[in-house]
Amino acid sequence: MTQTTELPVRQRVDDWLASFEAALRARDVTAAAALFAPGGFWRDLVAFTWNITTVEGRDGVADLLAHTLDTTDPGGFELLEEPTESGGVIEAWIRFETAVGRGTGHLRLRPEGAWTLLTTLRELKGHEESLGARRPQGVEHELAKGRQSWKERREAEAATLGVEEQPYVVVIGGGQGGIALGARLRQLGVPALVLDKFARPGDQWRGRYKSLCLHDPVWYDHLPYLPFPPTWPVFSPKDKIGDWLEMYTRVMEVPYWTNSAVRSATFDAQERRWSVTVEREGGSVELRPAHVVFATGMSGKPNYPSLPGQDVFRGEQQHSSRHPGPEAYAGKRVVVIGSNNSAFDICGALWEHDADVTMVQRSSTHIVKSASLMDIGLGDLYSERAVASGITTDKADMIFASIPYRIMHEFQIPLYERMAERDAEFYARLEKAGFDHDWGADGSGLFMKYLRRGSGYYIDVGAAELVADGRVKLAHGQVDHLTEDAVVLEDGTELPADLVVYATGYGSMNGWVADIVDAQTADRVGKVWGLGSDTPKDPGPWEGEQRNMWKPTQQENLWFHGGNLHQSRHYSLYLALQLKARYEGIPTPVYRLQESYHTS
Amino acid sequence: MTQTTELPVRQRVDDWLASFEAALRARDVTAAAALFAPGGFWRDLVAFTWNITTVEGRDGVADLLAHTLDTTDPGGFELLEEPTESGGVIEAWIRFETAVGRGTGHLRLRPEGAWTLLTTLRELKGHEESLGARRPQGVEHELAKGRQSWKERREAEAATLGVEEQPYVVVIGGGQGGIALGARLRQLGVPALVLDKFARPGDQWRGRYKSLCLHDPVWYDHLPYLPFPPTWPVFSPKDKIGDWLEMYTRVMEVPYWTNSAVRSATFDAQERRWSVTVEREGGSVELRPAHVVFATGMSGKPNYPSLPGQDVFRGEQQHSSRHPGPEAYAGKRVVVIGSNNSAFDICGALWEHDADVTMVQRSSTHIVKSASLMDIGLGDLYSERAVASGITTDKADMIFASIPYRIMHEFQIPLYERMAERDAEFYARLEKAGFDHDWGADGSGLFMKYLRRGSGYYIDVGAAELVADGRVKLAHGQVDHLTEDAVVLEDGTELPADLVVYATGYGSMNGWVADIVDAQTADRVGKVWGLGSDTPKDPGPWEGEQRNMWKPTQQENLWFHGGNLHQSRHYSLYLALQLKARYEGIPTPVYRLQESYHTS
Repeated sequence: MTQTTELPVRQRVDDWLASFEAALRARDVTAAAALFAPGGFWRDLVAFTWNITTVEGRDGVADLLAHTLDTTDPGGFELLEEPTESGGVIEAWIRFETAVGRGTGHLRLRPEGAWTLLTTLRELKGHEESLGARRPQGVEHELAKGRQSWKERREAEAATLGVEEQPYVVVIGGGQGGIALGARLRQLGVPALVLDKFARPGDQWRGRYKSLCLHDPVWYDHLPYLPFPPTWPVFSPKDKIGDWLEMYTRVMEVPYWTNSAVRSATFDAQERRWSVTVEREGGSVELRPAHVVFATGMSGKPNYPSLPGQDVFRGEQQHSSRHPGPEAYAGKRVVVIGSNNSAFDICGALWEHDADVTMVQRSSTHIVKSASLMDIGLGDLYSERAVASGITTDKADMIFASIPYRIMHEFQIPLYERMAERDAEFYARLEKAGFDHDWGADGSGLFMKYLRRGSGYYIDVGAAELVADGRVKLAHGQVDHLTEDAVVLEDGTELPADLVVYATGYGSMNGWVADIVDAQTADRVGKVWGLGSDTPKDPGPWEGEQRNMWKPTQQENLWFHGGNLHQSRHYSLYLALQLKARYEGIPTPVYRLQESYHTS
Repeated sequence: MTQTTELPVRQRVDDWLASFEAALRARDVTAAAALFAPGGFWRDLVAFTWNITTVEGRDGVADLLAHTLDTTDPGGFELLEEPTESGGVIEAWIRFETAVGRGTGHLRLRPEGAWTLLTTLRELKGHEESLGARRPQGVEHELAKGRQSWKERREAEAATLGVEEQPYVVVIGGGQGGIALGARLRQLGVPALVLDKFARPGDQWRGRYKSLCLHDPVWYDHLPYLPFPPTWPVFSPKDKIGDWLEMYTRVMEVPYWTNSAVRSATFDAQERRWSVTVEREGGSVELRPAHVVFATGMSGKPNYPSLPGQDVFRGEQQHSSRHPGPEAYAGKRVVVIGSNNSAFDICGALWEHDADVTMVQRSSTHIVKSASLMDIGLGDLYSERAVASGITTDKADMIFASIPYRIMHEFQIPLYERMAERDAEFYARLEKAGFDHDWGADGSGLFMKYLRRGSGYYIDVGAAELVADGRVKLAHGQVDHLTEDAVVLEDGTELPADLVVYATGYGSMNGWVADIVDAQTADRVGKVWGLGSDTPKDPGPWEGEQRNMWKPTQQENLWFHGGNLHQSRHYSLYLALQLKARYEGIPTPVYRLQESYHTS
């Protein structure tokens, strides 16, 4: 195929798309697979597979198509804009249709065939969102007796949903994940109810320690439909993001119950309905949705370690998620167990409030300076620079999604090499202070750690300097036990303490399923998050996609949603479309339902 | 100059700009004026004149320049994008600089010279808004003892502004106008406080009759910085816009006092400070701002007519602005005096709730069907179609602003001729029902009526049909008196009534000044709104711009702001920049301070 490299870029993409479409129309799986480079990837988000899945190599492509082609009936592949070429790889934005929907995608084409293909479902035919030219009128221009106002309709809906009328979907957890999904389901006309234990949307953030700001920048954090204004700070303070979530919930008309804690959920396989028991305003309410989405935070349940002496220790002990902030601890001796994000943030705020702080590092941590991460790690996709060069939020999300997880680390490693070089002096000081630093199992840095294990790093917004220069003291090793007034490490080091903060992380999200549904279901569903990368806290086998997130699980009609604001924004679309299709009775044959290899 | 028409469009604009700049640099007022077509216009929004003003003809241009050129020191005129030509008129988007700021503008060039020039100030050098690349970080990436969180800073600011620290600007009235201006002043770092008598931002809308929706479409209604999402309805229901204003005020961090009624304001000419007495939470607070902005609604104070027999009438009487909605009036006989927007909306809602409704038409009214107005009147600038063709909100505002008021009716008349044709059948039915209909004094329709007098029209969202087919009864003439149970017209017609609604409009905004400052100041400032078009309710002489709006008035440091959402959005920028310049001590020599010809 070498002669094709001499054709114009546009022609080569058009040819590829035409050949691909012809093979698909002819149901010629082998011919379609042969259009991929050996070792190429196809990532599909719901468009072909009603799943979130990546296949590898021509065999993988052939297998995907053999199972999905007849029901998907794809066609209409065409370019969305002029393709570009760089280093022998053509990048192209495409669109296509299926039997039931319209999709967009991204193609990386090499002389030997498609290297990566991303296909995503964007909307279901006949069920398009009421946006832009399809937006509602807001008023009927014909008067009629008994016509209800918007407010009356809203009040009637609020009074009946979950009472006289059952939601089709219950979303457990009303943080940014639940809210983003709730907004999408609302736009799609799926009756859904978001439940949260707090008094107001945004309290998930307001209730945390006072110095907390988002560590991700504003360009990465937009919610669907209503982006932050250009006045918004780069790093949202927690109360400000709390206010935004509260107002977003209101103006996007997300059906949302506050002060509502879910106590249990049971699936009736016959009726294919859940029974969800909610404690609300002093009473108990039973909801009967078809689907339950856990949007309880990708961090899952707090890991509260069990240590000898916890019962004799006279001071306070808290998991980091329960730490109230530093105000009460001026002059106190605080030992923080852990050395990741929460540990650093808490240590920093305590130091600012004149506590005597010791951080206990149990294992090595990856630290990147926020400015370097913004500039080198995210700047091409999520930054003012990216916006200025035409990378919209949607485009950035799609570019990110277009890189198969199997090779993502290869894209990441050079970025972290640049950061290491740029901040060499900082890392030297940090290591000189005795801090045990790493760059991830394969040097691929922060984002891969996030995707693989969701922990093991700190985005430095200032507190690392305190450790580097000894203002926050550093100790090493595992905790052996507590005494009445100290934490004792395995090497015998005794750390006097008035307060012990366990910044010891979180378990898998299926821990919430164990609590709310039952242990068997939690085990059957298995571990949530991670890729099967066979790196620390992310055991193999390779799974190719994040476990259990935004896609069908081993428990019918049970879903997981969450992650950072980028993921909450982008993947809420695919989860919402899966739920909408089921709500409308559109067949959703799932290709390659994930196996469960680990229970937690 | 005929040979220039043979030059490429781009070249002709470049040549014009170069000649204009050369003349300005040489301070050659005559040469600069000669670049305008005879009878051409120059409209300046604050960039040259520190005023909102339009000059006409070469003499006008020369006069403006003679007074402003030295202090403005303009230069750097250049094209912002490729100009276009249509029908012998070139349209060009330009930018330029002055001694203190940067501006953008719009030029219509004819072979004989500039037909219209618009110049607008966009930002002050060294005082640019914190937007986009200039947005705040939100967090300092260096820890420090005593560092305050965003919430603590916000709380401290709320506790001190107006108490220990005086605002530089007090904005009286916290509807869309006050909120938009408050947001801009906040972004510009001008300490300002918005005062409103209601309990929550948005209550200005929530408190009105329940069927009320904005009559302007969403594309016309965006507030600064934070546009409505694409899910927003075309016509916002009043409670939904109320929610939006409330959340906007919060997330844009507009300093806003609720439950705060302004009782009086006195200007100390020596100190150049106002003393503003505010009734707040049961007490009285004195504020000492340098500037006071009346943003109390361009409609001004309700006109409550004085009629014989009002004291003997046994039923209810209300001004339309106090009408609580139709719910209580099922089966009642209601007489609505007036036949403009409020009258139709109220009649329609009362009919929907089974009241027996009679509308009293006192003078002719202009009616356009909402769909026709959207399509023909606004569609080129404010619509999904406009958005799709690249007309951003800012561009639409600027195009609108580029048309001098002197000739705006010439642009408007053909649009209304098209509407008359399109809806001929409707108008025939309406007139057959006896409704007295007009198209404005010169056939220029709704928007000119709005600009000239702010009244005399109804955007039909359904209620006109009720009049056309008699479901709402129609009577004609002036009210002579009321009896115990009826309204009696001058021709002796007796209209039995349980409720009389006076949809009799509003006075000039300087009526608020009379109440809050004093009658002399109100008279000195004079009539607010209108153009001096010598048409009904807009007496001459011609003034060229809307009286007293968004520009210096005859009372030092007293300003008016308001209008529809489009005007609140666009003109709040120029008012905010005028206030910012004064706050920063930047000289603001006002060219041609407006005279006052009418007291109300």
